[in-house]
Amino acid sequence: MYALGTHLLVELKECSAKILSNLEEVQNVLVTAAKIADATIVEVAFHEFSPFGISGMVVIAESHLSIHTWPEYEYAAVDIFTCGNVLKPQKAVDYLIEKFQCKNPSVVEVKRGILSPLDKELPHKVSASNINKPEAIEDVCDEHPKQPALSANQKTV
Amino acid sequence: MYALGTHLLVELKECSAKILSNLEEVQNVLVTAAKIADATIVEVAFHEFSPFGISGMVVIAESHLSIHTWPEYEYAAVDIFTCGNVLKPQKAVDYLIEKFQCKNPSVVEVKRGILSPLDKELPHKVSASNINKPEAIEDVCDEHPKQPALSANQKTV
Repeated sequence: MYALGTHLLVELKECSAKILSNLEEVQNVLVTAAKIADATIVEVAFHEFSPFGISGMVVIAESHLSIHTWPEYEYAAVDIFTCGNVLKPQKAVDYLIEKFQCKNPSVVEVKRGILSPLDKELPHKVSASNINKPEAIEDVCDEHPKQPALSANQKTV
Repeated sequence: MYALGTHLLVELKECSAKILSNLEEVQNVLVTAAKIADATIVEVAFHEFSPFGISGMVVIAESHLSIHTWPEYEYAAVDIFTCGNVLKPQKAVDYLIEKFQCKNPSVVEVKRGILSPLDKELPHKVSASNINKPEAIEDVCDEHPKQPALSANQKTV
């Protein structure tokens, strides 16, 4: 069915615990996975936790990638949320499996934002009158990545 | 079954388009939702896209919250990924529904990291020998939030 977003829930079991506990390596793998999927990277934020475990987010113009690692269980949970038909999230999954030396991967694909019961794209300007900038409505995500217009305050607390 | 993480896929249809297109408001709602769930906020990153649409991530010590809004369709996709049993993600969902004036919400709960077929918690130190810091293994996520130890470079491109 036609949906606004495609969301891959990637379960990576039996990975290399050493790699999953290396902040720089995990970040590099997820950022490269986003590039391999042809995503446009907007922001990258990774944190390492004590005693160990890494959480990371790659905000892309077409939505996001995230990862949470439990090296003590050789497990990582990855999400790849994309919109449009241009990106190649499956290539990102293949890369993650390879780089984390995952011996037991599984993927569930969930469609997000199924708004039409007729299995076709919705017309534009559904609620344009209620939006602040009604003059330029187009579904840029299907054609080319959305462009960042403004970033809110970012903080680390 | 016992799982390392609980992931709520929150579909918010028929929301207020005006609210979903307001960067500051969307950020405030998601950050407050994280606090209502008793999450420990580590980092906040929000971006507004042209012509409109907002993407935001709230990295929490217990995993993350994310949102992508399509105000032109009065729709937002929210993810609430938590670990441990202390947080109250359902309270966050209720708050989001109220603040976005959502008339058509739905939630799917997905367990992430089901590693044991026996429906009980795994023993610790499954792969301690492969980890750089084997001296302090404990599942802090169940007892109290993980503490940030180190942040990798964060960049906006």
